[in-house]
Amino acid sequence: MNIAITELRTKLINLLSKNFSEDDAAKITDYLVWAEMSGNKTQGIVKLTGTEPLQNIIPEHEIRVERETKLSQLINAGANPAPLVTQIATQIAIEKAKEHGFAIVGVHNIHTSNGAQAYYAEQIARNDLIGIVTTRSAAAVAVFGGIDPIFGTNPIGFSFPTHDDPIVFDTATSALTWYGLVVAKTRGESIPENVAIDTNGQPTTDPVEAMNGALLPFDRTYKGAGFGMVSELLAGPLVKATYGQVEGEWGSLLIAIDPNLLVDTNEFKDGSTDLLRKIKASRKADDVAGIRIPGESSANKRRQAEMSGFVEVDDAVYSQLWSD
Amino acid sequence: MNIAITELRTKLINLLSKNFSEDDAAKITDYLVWAEMSGNKTQGIVKLTGTEPLQNIIPEHEIRVERETKLSQLINAGANPAPLVTQIATQIAIEKAKEHGFAIVGVHNIHTSNGAQAYYAEQIARNDLIGIVTTRSAAAVAVFGGIDPIFGTNPIGFSFPTHDDPIVFDTATSALTWYGLVVAKTRGESIPENVAIDTNGQPTTDPVEAMNGALLPFDRTYKGAGFGMVSELLAGPLVKATYGQVEGEWGSLLIAIDPNLLVDTNEFKDGSTDLLRKIKASRKADDVAGIRIPGESSANKRRQAEMSGFVEVDDAVYSQLWSD
Repeated sequence: MNIAITELRTKLINLLSKNFSEDDAAKITDYLVWAEMSGNKTQGIVKLTGTEPLQNIIPEHEIRVERETKLSQLINAGANPAPLVTQIATQIAIEKAKEHGFAIVGVHNIHTSNGAQAYYAEQIARNDLIGIVTTRSAAAVAVFGGIDPIFGTNPIGFSFPTHDDPIVFDTATSALTWYGLVVAKTRGESIPENVAIDTNGQPTTDPVEAMNGALLPFDRTYKGAGFGMVSELLAGPLVKATYGQVEGEWGSLLIAIDPNLLVDTNEFKDGSTDLLRKIKASRKADDVAGIRIPGESSANKRRQAEMSGFVEVDDAVYSQLWSD
Repeated sequence: MNIAITELRTKLINLLSKNFSEDDAAKITDYLVWAEMSGNKTQGIVKLTGTEPLQNIIPEHEIRVERETKLSQLINAGANPAPLVTQIATQIAIEKAKEHGFAIVGVHNIHTSNGAQAYYAEQIARNDLIGIVTTRSAAAVAVFGGIDPIFGTNPIGFSFPTHDDPIVFDTATSALTWYGLVVAKTRGESIPENVAIDTNGQPTTDPVEAMNGALLPFDRTYKGAGFGMVSELLAGPLVKATYGQVEGEWGSLLIAIDPNLLVDTNEFKDGSTDLLRKIKASRKADDVAGIRIPGESSANKRRQAEMSGFVEVDDAVYSQLWSD
């Protein structure tokens, strides 16, 4: 169904205010509306449904800063929801990098997933900074040559300012997301071939066997596993989160770099904007309609939603949340 | 042939001292001996042969610092050889990060390739810092859905300190390296299927057609192309190097981060060392002899060479350089 964005915001803030301060509820709402507007339905208001609805999370304690320097902050999230904590962490990274040229902010003990990591990366780039964002989740992915789950699905995102929308490249380092397994299981569907193995290391297209076994690295080689390992280290031991196992604390790392450390920011943006132009101007392969820049499609959807004032939300999710 | 490492060093310094100061010759030699000891023959003393031998490079001018802050330095390499300039840049990154917690050093106008990028990344991690190193080379790789060469083969490397050898993960973002094309062309051999396209975008296994056409991203999808784009931006416009085209200046970016900004360095090393243990302890797939950590194999080769005092070099390369 189509709903006015202002109405969706009000409904979400009402729902979230039962457990969270108005300010925190507004922050979580910002994230959820962004995900819906981006067309990223798996990371939007669906998070308010299911067995662990986001609005019912009872944090262990307030967010605590455990270490701080001019350039850095380590945050114990107190099991607050990731879309709240990671927004706060992003804001700190932006402020520190704007003042000192660089910032690194680590978060551990977050309650499950950041959702659409591109959200935080985009905010960094909208502030004329280069962003690197990664999250370590519960072990679900095999190492190259192995059959046990060791790494999380570990998304890595990079963002760059341009004269137009930021460039945001964000990808899971697994061949399928965990959510992809959940959806297939719920629907009783198979998963694609060559994305997962069962607990004996044999190829499987059964989502439950894959959950008990392991997903494969995104390219099925040591390269994809290498990027997964990088995320496991940056968002694991570097931020006091768990690593290499299923149970334990999730972690996130945010890095913000001012291009001005090396070149004038405007000159960098000239270059990034011009590189996009070169990419778009490439001759296309026969079977391709047009060349897309990472993040372009969701940015277009957000622009359309903003212009119309309306956003499409899933009927079933909406009626679960607001049926009365 | 087997040659004493001390003898190889002396021979290399002699050869390089004709054009470079003794100090610079020693630096280049350090790199070349490391590559030979690592078994990385395509990035070692073979660089002193061919149509553009490294020892004959005539730089345009001295290395110039064009911008500097506490955390950063932008270097115009004056077309000095990359294995010299990038070592100097690495040292600066290490010193700055040791003092301030973070450093970013950009280099443009380098003379061709850094060679084995793992060398610089490893040095950063040996100093208890986390390293990110990337290089933008001449356009040779298609964007996803495109058929023109836009990105370089753009290696990205990450390094992490442990209680033992550093973890060094370094990979080209293309499905084959440019050197892979050169070797196949020289030997009159085919290249593997599905790594390159000809100038009309059709699949080819002919290295010359691939040189005129384009290589594919390492995973043949938008993900690999995304990592290639990240390198093109970080080691292109961010360091005043060329981007998105064949001709122009190559660039490199080095980042060094002190883990101590977020956690005690020793605690980080406890975690990284333990993660390696978990990776190695994974049950293996049926067809796999053992699980290898990125960089492990070349580190073992270097250790063997150091213990024996001897290193294996290519007979043909040796006799070209020192036949008299």
